[in-house]
Amino acid sequence: MLENLPLTMEWTSPQQGKASLRLLDQRKLPHKVEYLDCYSSDQVCDAIALLAVRGAPAIGDAGAYALVLWAFNEWPVIAAASGQPIDSLPLFVDSLKIRGGQVASVRPTAVNLSWAVKRMLASAEQFALAGFSAEELVFELEREANVIYAADEADCKRIGEVGAQELHELAIKLGRPLRVETHCNAGSLACARYGTALSVIYHAHAAGDIEMVWVDETRPVDQGARLTAWELIEAGVPCTLICDNMAGSLMKDGKVDAVVVGADRICANGDFANKIGTYPLAVLAKHHGVPFYAAAPFSTFDMSLREGSQIVIEERDPQEVRCAPVSEGQWQQIAPEGCKVCNPAFDVTPHELLSGIITERGVQRP
Amino acid sequence: MLENLPLTMEWTSPQQGKASLRLLDQRKLPHKVEYLDCYSSDQVCDAIALLAVRGAPAIGDAGAYALVLWAFNEWPVIAAASGQPIDSLPLFVDSLKIRGGQVASVRPTAVNLSWAVKRMLASAEQFALAGFSAEELVFELEREANVIYAADEADCKRIGEVGAQELHELAIKLGRPLRVETHCNAGSLACARYGTALSVIYHAHAAGDIEMVWVDETRPVDQGARLTAWELIEAGVPCTLICDNMAGSLMKDGKVDAVVVGADRICANGDFANKIGTYPLAVLAKHHGVPFYAAAPFSTFDMSLREGSQIVIEERDPQEVRCAPVSEGQWQQIAPEGCKVCNPAFDVTPHELLSGIITERGVQRP
Repeated sequence: MLENLPLTMEWTSPQQGKASLRLLDQRKLPHKVEYLDCYSSDQVCDAIALLAVRGAPAIGDAGAYALVLWAFNEWPVIAAASGQPIDSLPLFVDSLKIRGGQVASVRPTAVNLSWAVKRMLASAEQFALAGFSAEELVFELEREANVIYAADEADCKRIGEVGAQELHELAIKLGRPLRVETHCNAGSLACARYGTALSVIYHAHAAGDIEMVWVDETRPVDQGARLTAWELIEAGVPCTLICDNMAGSLMKDGKVDAVVVGADRICANGDFANKIGTYPLAVLAKHHGVPFYAAAPFSTFDMSLREGSQIVIEERDPQEVRCAPVSEGQWQQIAPEGCKVCNPAFDVTPHELLSGIITERGVQRP
Repeated sequence: MLENLPLTMEWTSPQQGKASLRLLDQRKLPHKVEYLDCYSSDQVCDAIALLAVRGAPAIGDAGAYALVLWAFNEWPVIAAASGQPIDSLPLFVDSLKIRGGQVASVRPTAVNLSWAVKRMLASAEQFALAGFSAEELVFELEREANVIYAADEADCKRIGEVGAQELHELAIKLGRPLRVETHCNAGSLACARYGTALSVIYHAHAAGDIEMVWVDETRPVDQGARLTAWELIEAGVPCTLICDNMAGSLMKDGKVDAVVVGADRICANGDFANKIGTYPLAVLAKHHGVPFYAAAPFSTFDMSLREGSQIVIEERDPQEVRCAPVSEGQWQQIAPEGCKVCNPAFDVTPHELLSGIITERGVQRP
């Protein structure tokens, strides 16, 4: 079924043409399927900042390729401007580090972006120490980004298999296929392929264990209404769109058998940050005895953070709350002009509310 | 402060001109302040169905005036068409009952509409039995509708005073003014004046007990973003707009001191129906130890219903969930075309989650 889904991103190696990263412009979905061709790290950073590409694993992948674009297309210009030869190793590594810091800071909450950047920088340092030239290093960076992307795809597949087994046991217990709720978009569009939460749903659907998926619209950016509903329809999975505030009464009426969401950053104790609206959903699930899962690759764990209160929450543009994302990246105002708003992009769910974290290494219990 | 607010509705008696009901067209707020002049009960019913006028007490008032318009402007046409004299009492009363049933069915969940219609019909029957003519009855119906409107205004004022006293005690306990959250619009725009939940907030603000109001945008019709935010800004009460899914993390961070919402129908045991999203807010308030109040006139109690499971929930147009209400009654599509949705207009909050119901007769405890 996933063959129907357009790829979130596609890398063109300089061996095939000018180095570029083609991104599916997710701001235009579900109305139009269009692509952004990025030739510079700036273009990729803009695409990340403006949510043309979003989803924790996908922005990690895109961030890695941003540094490869920098190395292929921007580094020669920088070297020339500073009067240095193109294979000047110290300047290359220093400039790459500065650029990496800038790329990582575009979206601070999701761990995957800074994780991918760190991995790219570590790889560059390692090859520099091993005596590679700057020119050789560029190709090592490309190889590393390709590995990050391929590992993302493999992890997502395994997450789906692990989570589908968990849901299969629930379906057996209930004696029927499940109605599963999800929030935001932790799907194919958010990853190299398959997704995290939606990978679980795709694999469970293939096993006959899904009756229907409740899709939270996920204000303010409406990733659920625009992306998850679109992606599930494309994949042929039955789904019903709801406003975020409808989940409570559905659970009260016994119409939600499980909740599966993604995660942007998971602390050592299992507390995790995810799209705003995840935490109230977890409280409601607990109140109604509904199993609640986060699905994420192991790389989403940030062991430097002991617990959720240490997670930095990104506050986004107030216009998102005053407006609705009506089409093609356009926002139309709903609230009174100048109305004060609050717009945290994420919230933190404490581990006590979780039934488990579904990873490629199995289900982690709290 | 409430002098700044335009009136939700204004009645013109036939003694002053052609009988008409002027309604503030709430679909055009906050961008434009425009009015609908209704000369027939049909026009009022359309205004109620399309949410040009909304809010439980206001649609009760409007429903009563719809029957007065029927009596003044439509009855003479019906009488003539059926070859009966204009003062034919049995046909007048029978036709009024049929029209009343139709008016009451336009929005089935809010008790006030059917309550106001029943009161109008009972008044007509009483005066018919007392020997009044159909022509005299028409003026008695006008008087009755004016009484319903004036009582709504007086009740809202008293609800505000009672609720402000309750919040004052909380402010004294906390030693500071409060940050109060509200959902949907239970304000001046929903009533003859003052509102219910917002009357509490207006009176508490006047007493210096409100630091700030958290306004839930209240998807899918966005009454919070479009109406409550506008009304509070007009009245000079500090407010901050949030998406419905942000309430949980605000409560977790200790930023919500109390929640005050309206009610559309209250059962004998205190379970109540209100705008979709009220129930999850009540669960979250309970989870975080935040006091949670409903504010409504006593007429909102429906003693024929023992408990919440007996309340009929109105399912509204799926387009509301697929779209956003961008301006002037216009909706713009966000979700994929034809995407299946679920759109209950209300949910039911069990009385156990309530700190109290604020009425004009005092605070009713569960």
